[in-house]
Amino acid sequence: MADLNVYELLNRKRRGAPLDPREIETFIDRYTRGEIPDYQMSALLMSIAINGMTAEEMATLTQAMLRSGEQWHLRDEYDFIADKHSTGGVGDKVSLVLSPWVAACGIKIGMLSGRGLGHTGGTLDKLEAIPRFNARLSREQFDRTVAEAGCVISTSTEGIAPADKKIYALRDVTGTVESLPLITASIMSKKLAMGASALILDVKTGSGAFMRKYQDSKALAQSLIAAAAGSGTRVEALITDMDRPLGIAAGNANEIIETIDCLKGRGPEDVMAVTRAQGERLLVMSGRYDAASARAALDDALASGRALEQARQWIAAQGGDAEIVDDYSRLPQPKTTIEVKSPCSGFITHIDTYQAGMFTVDLGAGRKKADDQIDYAAGVMFDRRTGDEVRAGEVIARIQLGSGKRDAEEQRARFLAFVEFGDAPPERRALVHERLT
Amino acid sequence: MADLNVYELLNRKRRGAPLDPREIETFIDRYTRGEIPDYQMSALLMSIAINGMTAEEMATLTQAMLRSGEQWHLRDEYDFIADKHSTGGVGDKVSLVLSPWVAACGIKIGMLSGRGLGHTGGTLDKLEAIPRFNARLSREQFDRTVAEAGCVISTSTEGIAPADKKIYALRDVTGTVESLPLITASIMSKKLAMGASALILDVKTGSGAFMRKYQDSKALAQSLIAAAAGSGTRVEALITDMDRPLGIAAGNANEIIETIDCLKGRGPEDVMAVTRAQGERLLVMSGRYDAASARAALDDALASGRALEQARQWIAAQGGDAEIVDDYSRLPQPKTTIEVKSPCSGFITHIDTYQAGMFTVDLGAGRKKADDQIDYAAGVMFDRRTGDEVRAGEVIARIQLGSGKRDAEEQRARFLAFVEFGDAPPERRALVHERLT
Repeated sequence: MADLNVYELLNRKRRGAPLDPREIETFIDRYTRGEIPDYQMSALLMSIAINGMTAEEMATLTQAMLRSGEQWHLRDEYDFIADKHSTGGVGDKVSLVLSPWVAACGIKIGMLSGRGLGHTGGTLDKLEAIPRFNARLSREQFDRTVAEAGCVISTSTEGIAPADKKIYALRDVTGTVESLPLITASIMSKKLAMGASALILDVKTGSGAFMRKYQDSKALAQSLIAAAAGSGTRVEALITDMDRPLGIAAGNANEIIETIDCLKGRGPEDVMAVTRAQGERLLVMSGRYDAASARAALDDALASGRALEQARQWIAAQGGDAEIVDDYSRLPQPKTTIEVKSPCSGFITHIDTYQAGMFTVDLGAGRKKADDQIDYAAGVMFDRRTGDEVRAGEVIARIQLGSGKRDAEEQRARFLAFVEFGDAPPERRALVHERLT
Repeated sequence: MADLNVYELLNRKRRGAPLDPREIETFIDRYTRGEIPDYQMSALLMSIAINGMTAEEMATLTQAMLRSGEQWHLRDEYDFIADKHSTGGVGDKVSLVLSPWVAACGIKIGMLSGRGLGHTGGTLDKLEAIPRFNARLSREQFDRTVAEAGCVISTSTEGIAPADKKIYALRDVTGTVESLPLITASIMSKKLAMGASALILDVKTGSGAFMRKYQDSKALAQSLIAAAAGSGTRVEALITDMDRPLGIAAGNANEIIETIDCLKGRGPEDVMAVTRAQGERLLVMSGRYDAASARAALDDALASGRALEQARQWIAAQGGDAEIVDDYSRLPQPKTTIEVKSPCSGFITHIDTYQAGMFTVDLGAGRKKADDQIDYAAGVMFDRRTGDEVRAGEVIARIQLGSGKRDAEEQRARFLAFVEFGDAPPERRALVHERLT
């Protein structure tokens, strides 16, 4: 398409008219090659963010972005290999529990994941709390890990969807991050470039989610599924709750401990329920299980200790210290722990989970800027959680400090500012709200 | 405002929320200094082009752009000095006739004008058809010309509204030219930076106008007036007709001849009517005339020959060959003239004026790109015009070729393609549709 008229295309999208598939492909291709300047791409991004995209435009944009780099076609290499994506939350260690658990049921997991930015934690950051764990695998190391451990989680390589990397960096400075079609294309271009057999999407909803409102979360889930149409990867989404931190631990090393606890069969109920729901769907999507046999297989993998054993193999396969499974003291340890006591008797009625996430980030457990250093030992333990009855003076949380120093009273006050108390328990929220296909 | 959060500002404008005056000022200031990159400005421009601006935002944007450079405060220097702006059209030589005519009534005119781009002609290009005419005046030359001739028309200097120059260049490549607030700020920032006592806006409407539809032309006029609120420059707008070429001549040298003919009292009725309406308003806005005495003064200036004499002084004051007033052969002459004959008997019912303008540009009389060279002798004489009765075989137009060569038959065919004929005359359109204050 030598005759792409960028000016005319931008004019048309400004007026809200849809773009032609060939135009979108050519625009993305030329931008990735550096033939279209940032100022024209940012104008296009803003027009998309305001005027939206049709389902066809969005699918084309996703395809164009995934074609900008390597395509792994994992489903051609493996009989069945599953992938998973979470839209992010606080205390979200589901990928860590899910991968060895599902692998222990004979279903391979191959995942390229991300680091934390903003209020949500990052799966790779948590894994890197494990001494020597290597989250930057080559394609060969990725395949070797699947062969050795049945599952793998690695950072995305430079070769996957370079258009997305370039566009995301521009969105980040032009106020165009919040856009359903742009979010969709960014997530799905990377996922579809890997080309797993099946993909489960964990779309969070509530105060700690990227999309707080249920209808927005559902729209995102539907959009992500629509963008995969015709790709060859089977996609399902579960809308799960992120109106409270998931589990007790929010941080990095402390979430690894909670992950191992889950695989030992003593994890918090909410983490187990959300992970189990996703595991069941992946097992069913493989075609080797129905819902009942999937649930039985997951129970057996846990009860038999095979899921835990799989985690040990997996950590070792990625170069990590697998002995942490039996000895949590090998993980980075907090230097100081600040106890937070309940100021009153009654019930915890709400924890603003976005603020809880930002508090955790401030402790050093996450990043405000992309080049911030992670303090793996820092984090929060929510010993009492939304819905729990508490007594005045009872310890409800432990703030874990790593290398940084903090004023204890100030931290307690900051913590209590995002926790609400009341005389009656709040209405119960489901953990898994809805499944979309 | 050291803490401007560009990202948050772009997010807000994307959602359609209005911006704070201080934010707009800081953004424009930093962009002009090169501290904000093009890709952030183009995102802002696209969000403005789609979501619009409140009257307050638009006035602030205009103010911020005018403050980016020199402010001439002409009204402080002169008792009364008037300015004029036209949104552009085909055959629009009104500024050329108006300036010496109004100056002959004792009202000073100071105008910074532009060159032609696209289908509309440029006032400066027309003036530069006069041998040795200097349209690039310094501020000192500008004032000296007003002192010597009572009027001046010059190109905008580098110092006036540099933010507008930088933003316009970016709009031109990002599909954000068509935007009422951005058009308004671009026009008015330059006009208000000069700071004349009064400004008359000639907002064109019809097939040869920038805004073809009457409601769009009126919205533009209202927007331009609103942006001047509180500036100290009194602004009025006349919405005038551009559904047919103005006058008989469209080009450069041929429009200078028609201008002199007007000042000799033998100009086409439409040019005279539109110019007279604007002249009357400027005289009244000066406070020295009421409507009746203004009309009488204009009649007298023309009948006495003082308007023509003023033109002679003005051309000489800007270094031009004033003898062209008496000897049109001193202007660039067409090398060839192609006569176009009517293919039928009846009435000319419509001339698509945008296409007529583009045809004239193609002859060399205007520019498609900013660095195109003007062929001053090229142009079109519309000997028969919309509404005129014609006989088959009668010459209805003369296509004037300058240095270029063209196939006569092809030119005739192209010309006739934008002229419509019928059995009955078209409905008459007013020349001056409405006055807005």
